Amino acid sequence: MLRVGYPATLAAELFNDFPKEVELISLPDTLDHDVDIDVWIPDPYSNRATRTWPHLRRVRLVLALLAGTEWIPGIVGPHVTICNAHGAHNISTAEWTVASILTMLKYFPFYLDVQHAGKWKLRYKASANYAELTGDARPIYPPVMLEELTGKKVLLVGYGSIGTEIERMLAPFHVDMVRVARSARTQPEVFAVGDLDKLLPQAEIVILILPSTAETRGLIGARQFAMMRQGALLVNAARGPIVDTDALIDALQSGKIRAAIDVTDPEPLPDGHPLWSAPNLLITPHVAGSTPMFMVRAMEFAASQIGRYLRGEPLENVVTGEY
Amino acid sequence: MLRVGYPATLAAELFNDFPKEVELISLPDTLDHDVDIDVWIPDPYSNRATRTWPHLRRVRLVLALLAGTEWIPGIVGPHVTICNAHGAHNISTAEWTVASILTMLKYFPFYLDVQHAGKWKLRYKASANYAELTGDARPIYPPVMLEELTGKKVLLVGYGSIGTEIERMLAPFHVDMVRVARSARTQPEVFAVGDLDKLLPQAEIVILILPSTAETRGLIGARQFAMMRQGALLVNAARGPIVDTDALIDALQSGKIRAAIDVTDPEPLPDGHPLWSAPNLLITPHVAGSTPMFMVRAMEFAASQIGRYLRGEPLENVVTGEY
Repeated sequence: MLRVGYPATLAAELFNDFPKEVELISLPDTLDHDVDIDVWIPDPYSNRATRTWPHLRRVRLVLALLAGTEWIPGIVGPHVTICNAHGAHNISTAEWTVASILTMLKYFPFYLDVQHAGKWKLRYKASANYAELTGDARPIYPPVMLEELTGKKVLLVGYGSIGTEIERMLAPFHVDMVRVARSARTQPEVFAVGDLDKLLPQAEIVILILPSTAETRGLIGARQFAMMRQGALLVNAARGPIVDTDALIDALQSGKIRAAIDVTDPEPLPDGHPLWSAPNLLITPHVAGSTPMFMVRAMEFAASQIGRYLRGEPLENVVTGEY
Repeated sequence: MLRVGYPATLAAELFNDFPKEVELISLPDTLDHDVDIDVWIPDPYSNRATRTWPHLRRVRLVLALLAGTEWIPGIVGPHVTICNAHGAHNISTAEWTVASILTMLKYFPFYLDVQHAGKWKLRYKASANYAELTGDARPIYPPVMLEELTGKKVLLVGYGSIGTEIERMLAPFHVDMVRVARSARTQPEVFAVGDLDKLLPQAEIVILILPSTAETRGLIGARQFAMMRQGALLVNAARGPIVDTDALIDALQSGKIRAAIDVTDPEPLPDGHPLWSAPNLLITPHVAGSTPMFMVRAMEFAASQIGRYLRGEPLENVVTGEY
């Protein structure tokens, strides 16, 4: 039997899909005696997991429930294989991306202002009406008509597991999709991030869903905003530092672009920060990936990993260690 | 040559797809002499079209640019074939439906309140925080986590040309779709509207996209709200009178359901009407169908109709008259 230790806080029904050849060992974070296990599913709260670790013996494999595993090697050392649960946020993050695009193209933030004001006649606003309604005289895109997503030119910057989900969800809208990733490839055609200058001027919607690295820091700054189309929509579902915040504020204030962002730099965004009140902007406070399905999907993935381990097949999402 | 009269306000490039066997006659609404035409494309503004009509001779076919043609037979009489342009609003209305569902499931109205307040820490609100933020202590669905559209149980009430577009756009979300129309049919399975009592209690999202008729008036009232799931989302992209407004307000105020509506009863919704301030509600003021693509699509359809007419094939969307 393969002995799998898991945090006592996880509900038993989450283990329904685990292979039969597994003995499940519930590990309270108050564990006070040593336990032999082969596979450890650590508590997602690192302080609890850190309290449990000293009592674990013979651990060969760590299956993390979150994407971020940077704290684990420091606890378990270099000779234990660590896998992350990359993937459990894919659907929710991709849905947030499509939701935020549609919300901006349908001008729902404006229509919520109309609703709060309770004035049907403001429905097709002139800028003057909007200024009257909100006291905001900055440039605003007036919804004389709602926009359609169907047929829009989309630049998808980042084509990993979330990027492919976004593409799948945009398919019924027949968007004109251009993909960008770290390096160019084919089938489907993906351009290299170095080609961004060539591609940005065409896009009506620019989606950022690429990792935050030294190379992607400040990828979208004043120079890039200057080459974007008037009224283009920037969507950041990735990480705050990929966009230069001051340049973003300028591009919004001047009416050059619109944006929907789930991430900011700095984060959390402090009280009184000018981004909070920039026009033509939807901010959500880093919640795009949140989903009630998270733990279910993370545990399904853990079950499939244990199946691979038992069959001697290569594990997926190995982030460090030996196997 | 088939002589086609059109309102002088339409741009010439809208006629690029028209068959070569057509002579196009521009008709100003100040027309002061009689004109022989075979096919009339009336100005969508009925008062202008009514001024033009007395000068038109020999009209056999009217191709309306809008879905609503109820004013046309009274002008042209019973012996002229009238076709509507049903279809030009399909994509925009279906997009609005998906947009409003995603906006509600991702709690964007709440996050816009957070953004206006400029308080990142309100991101996962307790009801208490929300009351503090908005002064609104009524029952609110707290976004402890955002919801996913993926896998939701959707009841699509109305399965005409817009309903099928909605289904197509929801496909990537793998929703559990149940269809309802006036009468039951198969391939795909569609239930009759008489089965609604049986189907409503299961649905997490109820989409109304059926015509407003004597039978559908008040289709969703107090009895139907009572049998809906706690927290279900009602989406009305059809017509206001299909939902009983007082019952809707009660169901929202009590926290039983959530709603997104593009139509109201009465419409326009008067200043101070209690619906404006009901909780867990998105109102847009009958703009879902609006799209910059409307005239392009309506004229593409008119071109295809004229092609059918020239080839002696049956016309589509005949609403009255003989052919």
